[in-house]
Amino acid sequence: MSNLSRLQNELRVLGCHGLLIPSTDEYLSEFAQPFTRRLGWATGFAGSTGLAIVLQDRAALSLDGRYTAQGKRDTAPLGIEIIDASESSRQRWLSTHLLPGQRLGIDTRLQSYQDIERTLTFAAQHGIEIVQLAQNPIDVLWGAERPPAPAVPVNDYPTHFAGAPATQKCSQLREWLTASGMDCHLLADPEDVAWLLNVRTDESLRTNSEGWHIVPAPLSRVLVEATGKVFWFIERARLEPQLAARLRGGGAAGGAASDVEVIDPTRFESFLKERVAGKVVGANLLRTPHRFAAIAAAVGTLKNDPVVAQRRWIKHPNEVERAREGHHLDGRAVIRFLAWVQRTVGERTITELDAARKLTEFRTELSEYRGLSMPLMSASGASGAMAHYVPSEHSNRRLNDHPIYWMDSGGQYHGCSTDNTVCIAVGKPEPRHIRAHTLVVKGFIALTTACFPAGIYSTQLDSFARRYLWQEGLDYGHGTGHGVGNYMNIHEGPYIRKEPIHPMAAPLQAGMIVSNEPAYYQDGDFGIRVESHLAVVPSKHAGFLEFETLSRLPIDPRLIDASLLTPEEKRWLAEYHVQIRAGYQGCFDAPTAEWLQGIVTTYVEMAR
Amino acid sequence: MSNLSRLQNELRVLGCHGLLIPSTDEYLSEFAQPFTRRLGWATGFAGSTGLAIVLQDRAALSLDGRYTAQGKRDTAPLGIEIIDASESSRQRWLSTHLLPGQRLGIDTRLQSYQDIERTLTFAAQHGIEIVQLAQNPIDVLWGAERPPAPAVPVNDYPTHFAGAPATQKCSQLREWLTASGMDCHLLADPEDVAWLLNVRTDESLRTNSEGWHIVPAPLSRVLVEATGKVFWFIERARLEPQLAARLRGGGAAGGAASDVEVIDPTRFESFLKERVAGKVVGANLLRTPHRFAAIAAAVGTLKNDPVVAQRRWIKHPNEVERAREGHHLDGRAVIRFLAWVQRTVGERTITELDAARKLTEFRTELSEYRGLSMPLMSASGASGAMAHYVPSEHSNRRLNDHPIYWMDSGGQYHGCSTDNTVCIAVGKPEPRHIRAHTLVVKGFIALTTACFPAGIYSTQLDSFARRYLWQEGLDYGHGTGHGVGNYMNIHEGPYIRKEPIHPMAAPLQAGMIVSNEPAYYQDGDFGIRVESHLAVVPSKHAGFLEFETLSRLPIDPRLIDASLLTPEEKRWLAEYHVQIRAGYQGCFDAPTAEWLQGIVTTYVEMAR
Repeated sequence: MSNLSRLQNELRVLGCHGLLIPSTDEYLSEFAQPFTRRLGWATGFAGSTGLAIVLQDRAALSLDGRYTAQGKRDTAPLGIEIIDASESSRQRWLSTHLLPGQRLGIDTRLQSYQDIERTLTFAAQHGIEIVQLAQNPIDVLWGAERPPAPAVPVNDYPTHFAGAPATQKCSQLREWLTASGMDCHLLADPEDVAWLLNVRTDESLRTNSEGWHIVPAPLSRVLVEATGKVFWFIERARLEPQLAARLRGGGAAGGAASDVEVIDPTRFESFLKERVAGKVVGANLLRTPHRFAAIAAAVGTLKNDPVVAQRRWIKHPNEVERAREGHHLDGRAVIRFLAWVQRTVGERTITELDAARKLTEFRTELSEYRGLSMPLMSASGASGAMAHYVPSEHSNRRLNDHPIYWMDSGGQYHGCSTDNTVCIAVGKPEPRHIRAHTLVVKGFIALTTACFPAGIYSTQLDSFARRYLWQEGLDYGHGTGHGVGNYMNIHEGPYIRKEPIHPMAAPLQAGMIVSNEPAYYQDGDFGIRVESHLAVVPSKHAGFLEFETLSRLPIDPRLIDASLLTPEEKRWLAEYHVQIRAGYQGCFDAPTAEWLQGIVTTYVEMAR
Repeated sequence: MSNLSRLQNELRVLGCHGLLIPSTDEYLSEFAQPFTRRLGWATGFAGSTGLAIVLQDRAALSLDGRYTAQGKRDTAPLGIEIIDASESSRQRWLSTHLLPGQRLGIDTRLQSYQDIERTLTFAAQHGIEIVQLAQNPIDVLWGAERPPAPAVPVNDYPTHFAGAPATQKCSQLREWLTASGMDCHLLADPEDVAWLLNVRTDESLRTNSEGWHIVPAPLSRVLVEATGKVFWFIERARLEPQLAARLRGGGAAGGAASDVEVIDPTRFESFLKERVAGKVVGANLLRTPHRFAAIAAAVGTLKNDPVVAQRRWIKHPNEVERAREGHHLDGRAVIRFLAWVQRTVGERTITELDAARKLTEFRTELSEYRGLSMPLMSASGASGAMAHYVPSEHSNRRLNDHPIYWMDSGGQYHGCSTDNTVCIAVGKPEPRHIRAHTLVVKGFIALTTACFPAGIYSTQLDSFARRYLWQEGLDYGHGTGHGVGNYMNIHEGPYIRKEPIHPMAAPLQAGMIVSNEPAYYQDGDFGIRVESHLAVVPSKHAGFLEFETLSRLPIDPRLIDASLLTPEEKRWLAEYHVQIRAGYQGCFDAPTAEWLQGIVTTYVEMAR
């Protein structure tokens, strides 16, 4: 009997007509670990993002465009209906197949407070009864086959990498709580916890068939009291000795006795309920599972307060310095890789997976490299028209067959998470490829070189990156940029997007690190994306900010139509590549150095 | 005894400790007519925008920066304290001078629903008791000296100018109401009414000492029922015969019997209370006085719905065509004026008021001209550093004394309201003037030539106009653009601003007409502003829009540093000026034609 059928039987026993199964876990992780991949267990879908609605006699899987084909393939034996990822599609499906008065089960730990509140409103309007399940029926059925929860050590993340000491961040958070009339703050997002306490883990997750990527924030939560303690909900056994010593106070780093109390995560809900009774509790409701926020709202007063995320997005000067070093290091591997592709692809077959493997090999040779920061996107020809394409044995194309190839990848280093996209010509690119790439690069330069008033909202810079595509009636369907973590998840705020307001957008401030990734996708044909990371730094003009490019990645001049560039753009390209070469004097083998020199020469001549 | 003292006595009689006196009237007009200038009556302040707080023993006047000096001067005899225009300053002043339990009177007809709701919240927090006055004590005291209410005729505004017939607009509004589950819609904004019913008036208001400007929307309100009538609250005696005939049905234009019922405005509140009982009532709460919205909320269900304003902002193709004609016409006067200034200022003294008079003289010679669209801003040297400067005998400067002069003015024509800013060099401009002007013009061209996806939010284009100033650490403190009416107020939506979200911003759609007015102000020294009107039109790229420049106004080449321009910018300037000249073949006297030809030649040579 399929897992789906077993689950449907269980729903009958529970008297539930349906169950929502999101891909997220109890920490709303971007990438759920195997032991919480309930969606995969129930439906067979192996992608990272989706939401199933299982009724007693049918089921639907709501997926965004990049997963539609895979969803169909993975769930084919079960006859699950694939619907699009919009909330309205899900609601339409629910209201078509559930009658008023019928009961829909929800594990309210698996979606944010704001998401579930919208579901509750919808259900109330349609007379659907929501059952907030105390236990997830999948966890019961999964039994002995369920993978184990992570148990890898949790490490102290030294101030050298973290920027400021944890005690200082905690003090500043307490000052904020006191000043804004809050008694405590609930950090339900593991990244907020990792930032606040200066802790990381080397947990890794299988990505595509070619690798593992690091998820550096240990799954844990924190409750900070304005005038009391810092309660950290994590398995004590996972804390490595140096961290345990720091928490005890004293230790190698010296310092006062710590006020962090470690509590077993199984006690989290009951502890929360007792501790916040009658209190004003701040929490980032975009990143707090509904059940926990609802506890705070029930016994105390709940306030939406994304303060920790917003502080985390502004890096300490030392963090920016580590990011400079990390990008320089990572650039070594990527430049070697680019030179390797260019000289090898004329001689023999390279597949998307071969290329992914080779880049990982080069990164692995860097002693500071700790793992990938995300699933490798290695895309040739029509694959590249899918913005989030990750190759598999199924889809694996030969780079040799198409003139455009791009690779979006990143490495994790202590102090720095990289995430960059290089796009190169293979063989002979056609004018339409060169034109599209040049327009993308013009937007890339326009954002990179922008100067702007401190505090301007991040979305206000988005149009700079799109302008040259727009002038030709072209665009790309994703944001232009996102904030980036420090040995952390590579997607955080602030977002640079064309939607004027977004919960992950923010006023730009010095110390933020953002990606700059304009693109163009020609469906079924080819794709172009160029991506670097930029640090927001003070400009020479008082009250204004500008960007410093952290990435050190060549742009393929064979994909540039110099006649479309202004003299300023040509000068920027020449200076940028001269700077790259200067930073890597003596770092490369002869063929790589020669290849890089060739690019520098081309741009310098172009700028004359 | 001063009016202020009389009012303070009256407050004692009423048992009110204070009274709010905004500059707005019962229609929330941008420019209040003399008979509703209660603020001026009580304080002597003659400016157009402000809010007084009168207590029994003291008073404050809250003004924005452009009125601070005038406010001090005008109210000096009364010892009124001048505070800034922010809501927080007012609230601080109120909470300093009013004790909990004291009573603050408000005439809730004079501020929007949203404004007063915020005041009510503030008062509740501070224990201040709000008295919603049934009658404004100023109206009682004003007595026989109060100017009369407007009585000028209200005219039919023919479809040739209005675009679509009123019957069609009313039908479409009713379809909207039915589709969105509303029973009726309250139009409390006279501009919404004028647009919906195709009516206008030639009411004019005194502006600066040099003129009168037209306020074309008659002060009136409408209640539209989804399945019933259109109730129009206006004095029947004001309707001119052709309009009265149209409303009776038939008439010159033919057509079915009208369903518009004219009701005397004095009956408005009681009628509303009866008619909307138990109904769902839509209204644009940003533009609806609190008292009327509160009636709807009390007896029925109130919904915020700016549908009429948003439709009004999208012009009918015929309206766009009329705007083209109107701008062409208006440009004749402005070009004559520019040529006149340039050839006269070397010979004799011209003051800001002289210049304003001259431009009005040239406009008046156009037979279609009906009046100014706004107070004339005519600014030389340091005057020009004030964005909203309107000259008076007090401040009147000589153009001859400073190399930079700008004039922001507009004319009203049936079918078109213009509003443009020209900026010229007088004598010998210095490099800093030329540099600032060139940066402003580069932003002006960048916005003018932008192509963008249909539906992009208007605020997303703002940065294009600021980029070149930003690169030098410069900026301007106002929005880049606003929508413009059709023989109507010249400020409407959509706004193009750097705040990502604004109640007057909107997704851009074909048919909108917006201003493009980047600027630079050097405090105490000089100011630069260049402004044209743009129509949003489909681009040749499907799904994309672009701008068509409606204004026909030369840009002074003596204020352009060609070395800062790209070849594309030079080409745009040459083509734009060639087009202007072509449109006015044979229209000008020899000196004007020669002056224009000189400019065209300069730009054509610059573009070579």
